[in-house]
Amino acid sequence: MNFNLDSIPSKEIMPGYHAKLVHAEHMSIAFWEVEEGAVVPEHSHMNEQIMHVLKGRFEFTVNGNTNIHVANDLVVIPPHAVHSGKALTACKLMDVFSPVREAYK
Amino acid sequence: MNFNLDSIPSKEIMPGYHAKLVHAEHMSIAFWEVEEGAVVPEHSHMNEQIMHVLKGRFEFTVNGNTNIHVANDLVVIPPHAVHSGKALTACKLMDVFSPVREAYK
Repeated sequence: MNFNLDSIPSKEIMPGYHAKLVHAEHMSIAFWEVEEGAVVPEHSHMNEQIMHVLKGRFEFTVNGNTNIHVANDLVVIPPHAVHSGKALTACKLMDVFSPVREAYK
Repeated sequence: MNFNLDSIPSKEIMPGYHAKLVHAEHMSIAFWEVEEGAVVPEHSHMNEQIMHVLKGRFEFTVNGNTNIHVANDLVVIPPHAVHSGKALTACKLMDVFSPVREAYK
């Protein structure tokens, strides 16, 4: 299956979080444009997640530990870890999930 | 687990294919710098793979179908699909795998 990001429509998954998504069989990949100040409330899921910061400053808390992430940062979020975030500036983020992130379909 | 790409050492996994790798529990992520002309011979693996082209022109064949991919292209490679590639120019690629790509550890 071949895709180009330019032709994937963007979905506002949460207020201020606009994603282009590809769901494969065992993984989902999400390319986010995040508005400055937009917040992801605390949540958890059974999917393992790897977050990659492409642009901006993103405050991110995993299991009670808060860090401010910048371009080229990668964060591994284990299954069921409680996490939340806030875009301190407009951000570009990429997430990968396994298994597929059904809630984003 | 937090990482920054700038502090991950690069490994030449195959001739001309230099990767920065992060292995999580269920996924691996690889950021490639590929030299012009470098070839990935035909191979397959049980891991599902998603390839993302960041830069350059990459000729890629999956199960006998050849395409030339450019920036923003995404390709889903199903488990056990036979695939091979050639960098027509110097390329930057990102791959995600699930389960973990043990052969790259």
